[in-house]
Amino acid sequence: MSTISNYTFQELTLGQTATYSKTVETRDIELFATLSGDVNPIHLDPDFAANTPFERCIAHGMLSGAVISAAIAMQMPGPGSIYRRQSLRFHAPVFAGDTINVKLEIIGKKDQGRIVTLDCKAMNQHQKLVVSGSAEVMAPAEKMSLIRPQVSQT
Amino acid sequence: MSTISNYTFQELTLGQTATYSKTVETRDIELFATLSGDVNPIHLDPDFAANTPFERCIAHGMLSGAVISAAIAMQMPGPGSIYRRQSLRFHAPVFAGDTINVKLEIIGKKDQGRIVTLDCKAMNQHQKLVVSGSAEVMAPAEKMSLIRPQVSQT
Repeated sequence: MSTISNYTFQELTLGQTATYSKTVETRDIELFATLSGDVNPIHLDPDFAANTPFERCIAHGMLSGAVISAAIAMQMPGPGSIYRRQSLRFHAPVFAGDTINVKLEIIGKKDQGRIVTLDCKAMNQHQKLVVSGSAEVMAPAEKMSLIRPQVSQT
Repeated sequence: MSTISNYTFQELTLGQTATYSKTVETRDIELFATLSGDVNPIHLDPDFAANTPFERCIAHGMLSGAVISAAIAMQMPGPGSIYRRQSLRFHAPVFAGDTINVKLEIIGKKDQGRIVTLDCKAMNQHQKLVVSGSAEVMAPAEKMSLIRPQVSQT
């Protein structure tokens, strides 16, 4: 049975890194359109997208934000983290089939409130930076190892 | 047939506002877990969540970010916008069944690059601020009115 574990505030050190990857499929873009309500044809209609500078459907920018947030929640610090702030800068489009590789690095630690600051970089499979930013998280006080819940198939 | 239209850079004025609402259902939280990979039980397992300070499952913070991004893409400036930056500060949890009401306001305009800055506030149905931040967008040069694509049922 698969588990999800975390790093406590005490365990995290400046310069510590973690990675997380997600391949964005057309289905993910459709799910993002459904849950956000952003049904712009640039994301959903290949014929429309063919006549734009991108030439193909692009993923919603915030879908990469979602993947960065998952990196923080699943990898470092992981379960028990409380998300306080996130900045995102969108550099380049993500297309269906692209793999987003997130790299996180601890760049700040404040004992008061167990606050850690993370540098966040999302690169595609061609090592092109697609999104960068930083996150501020209240790190967990307690070690956790949780059973990974099953998500219903969509 | 429903359409989506936009505001061009020229049409946008300082102080202009727009609103966008989305009720977050359990299904949306499950879809977000699927597409991001963040399957933390605080979002998905009511028995687990009952033993946390929140007592109930909470939506992923970045799901509110997704709704803010949809407000920008669907309402103001709307189609043809290019997302450059977004900052988000998470103030309070969003629960399944909560309605997120986003208010956008134009707080900056730069002719160079057609850049507009938007103040972004997301409140729940009790007028409690859940997420705040600001966005930087390249506004469209051309007026558009697009047919709203159908999104497959999930």
